[in-house]
Amino acid sequence: MMGIGGFTPLNGFMNYADWRGVCAGMTMSSGLFWPIPITLSVSRETADSFKTGSDIALIDPDDGSAIATMVVTEKYSIDKAHECATVFHTADPDHPGVKMVMEQGEINIAGPVKVLSQGGFPEKYGELFMSPQETRQMFQSMGWSKVAAFQTRNPMHRSHEYLAKVAIEVCDGVLIHSLLGNLKPGDIPADVRTRAIATLTENYFVKKTVVQAGYPLDMRYAGPREALLHALFRQNYGCSHLIVGRDHAGVGSYYGPFDAHHIFDKIPKGSLETQPLKIDWTFWCYRCGGMASARTCPHKDEDRLLLSGTKLRKMLSEGSAVPAEFSRPEVLEVLRAYYGGLAEHEKVEVKLSGHSAK
Amino acid sequence: MMGIGGFTPLNGFMNYADWRGVCAGMTMSSGLFWPIPITLSVSRETADSFKTGSDIALIDPDDGSAIATMVVTEKYSIDKAHECATVFHTADPDHPGVKMVMEQGEINIAGPVKVLSQGGFPEKYGELFMSPQETRQMFQSMGWSKVAAFQTRNPMHRSHEYLAKVAIEVCDGVLIHSLLGNLKPGDIPADVRTRAIATLTENYFVKKTVVQAGYPLDMRYAGPREALLHALFRQNYGCSHLIVGRDHAGVGSYYGPFDAHHIFDKIPKGSLETQPLKIDWTFWCYRCGGMASARTCPHKDEDRLLLSGTKLRKMLSEGSAVPAEFSRPEVLEVLRAYYGGLAEHEKVEVKLSGHSAK
Repeated sequence: MMGIGGFTPLNGFMNYADWRGVCAGMTMSSGLFWPIPITLSVSRETADSFKTGSDIALIDPDDGSAIATMVVTEKYSIDKAHECATVFHTADPDHPGVKMVMEQGEINIAGPVKVLSQGGFPEKYGELFMSPQETRQMFQSMGWSKVAAFQTRNPMHRSHEYLAKVAIEVCDGVLIHSLLGNLKPGDIPADVRTRAIATLTENYFVKKTVVQAGYPLDMRYAGPREALLHALFRQNYGCSHLIVGRDHAGVGSYYGPFDAHHIFDKIPKGSLETQPLKIDWTFWCYRCGGMASARTCPHKDEDRLLLSGTKLRKMLSEGSAVPAEFSRPEVLEVLRAYYGGLAEHEKVEVKLSGHSAK
Repeated sequence: MMGIGGFTPLNGFMNYADWRGVCAGMTMSSGLFWPIPITLSVSRETADSFKTGSDIALIDPDDGSAIATMVVTEKYSIDKAHECATVFHTADPDHPGVKMVMEQGEINIAGPVKVLSQGGFPEKYGELFMSPQETRQMFQSMGWSKVAAFQTRNPMHRSHEYLAKVAIEVCDGVLIHSLLGNLKPGDIPADVRTRAIATLTENYFVKKTVVQAGYPLDMRYAGPREALLHALFRQNYGCSHLIVGRDHAGVGSYYGPFDAHHIFDKIPKGSLETQPLKIDWTFWCYRCGGMASARTCPHKDEDRLLLSGTKLRKMLSEGSAVPAEFSRPEVLEVLRAYYGGLAEHEKVEVKLSGHSAK
């Protein structure tokens, strides 16, 4: 993200003053708004092996190649529990973001970074992998000035299509922006997701209103604070808006379903150029006879098509019919082909998001 | 409109300099943006009966009561053809706006107006008739800051519901703002329309996302320029947005279907606080399995439910089934009761808008 300009104007990993300011008040020592610490941790032993001022190389753990160089300006230790409490609003070690922070090395190292490699993303993902400069150029050439990013790490069902289409009604276009990178067990692989999304847009979207691309940043599951980070880096990608649905970037029940909406109203005006396009919980309603959200449908749960992820996975792996009001047949076909190729023990692991845009 | 603050900051009828500036460049001599002349015409004989500087009374032609006083600051004659060419973009005498201007008196009189009466609107329309001050207070008490006005002079079918609901997804609420006042032959009476709209909102809208009210201004059918006037007076009513659909305020084929969208991009920035919420042609699409617009549905006309006004009127007066994808059954019931009570010769006259938000 640093190498391609996704984290502009950061030029490296944060120092202690920045870390402290970001945790406590989402503000770096320069006064710049930033919602989540971007830090690099190493073991105490590694930290002891070089001095402050050293020019070090950052190595790809998989193949040993240098992916960046960095001038170490500061070594510092942090109160991890404080970071978790302020960023994740929980100290629960079962929270995946908390777990990640607690398992970090003991020492953070700060300093400007020079990125040497794009980490294999262009080779692996081809034209799906677009830099902020590339998306901005593309939007300009398409004449788009009002562009909404739709954040996803899953295939899109009709609830997600509805979110994107509401945005298309009021914007020049939508960037369907998928998370690329490390998969967790049970995630749908990027190529299957990309194919499912491409199938959806080819059959149900108007050309030149939608573009699919990916970005290289793992989820933190920080809910509201992560929604702010998602808006911030979309600013670099040239998006004027970020679609923020129910429980954006949330996990479990750590956050209220609309905490990620409210936080945008609590930050100082001018913190972000990219604004949220807040949309409520979305679903098919039989009484409305259409897709709707809790803001546009006055009916009851029993009038709505609600499918749990578990039930959907069961239907897909058993090959039974999934209602067309839940997902497009063309999309289901792509997913069924994938599920059909999975071994039995893998099937139960595969997660599909039901209604939210997580 | 002057008396209730709908035309603020106008304090009376325009003089020659204002008329000329508004026709030519939508700018009054004060520099204020204004898209359509607001003038008062009288016959030459009437104009000759008082001097400039006189304090005159404006009389309700129906009952002879004084509805306003006015200090005449100027008497002038205009080039009616010039007004028609600049405001309506046509000199065709069949255009209802052109017809209105051409039938005006020969002399315009200008000057500040003091309004004495609300012209019977509060008595006739009850709480449907709200002043700009009342709607602004209502929006404030509901906590609405982003409010879209939906302009209508007809009952709402599903295409209109869709326009309003797109707005609700992205705003705090929608003001369904109906034209009150003189009916043309064939228009649905205000009480029937109000009942049809109330039935729709009760059954298909979430409470506190929508309000119905009316305003006392006849249509000019000036298409794009009138869309600007509709946005301008909604600014006084406290609306941040005006929904502008296909062929807004148009008639016949005098204007391109999206001229009323484009004109908002051509006026100087800052001319209007109230912004357009531009939405394309809307309809039910059988392949999408839902409501859509030409921006969100890639399919063909044959996949879409297209009912002409003529065909709908025929179905309603004959009591035959209208597809639920076109209009809500509860709304159709209200309209059927009305059509059922009409004499045969009246039925053919009744107009119903099919797809646009005119």
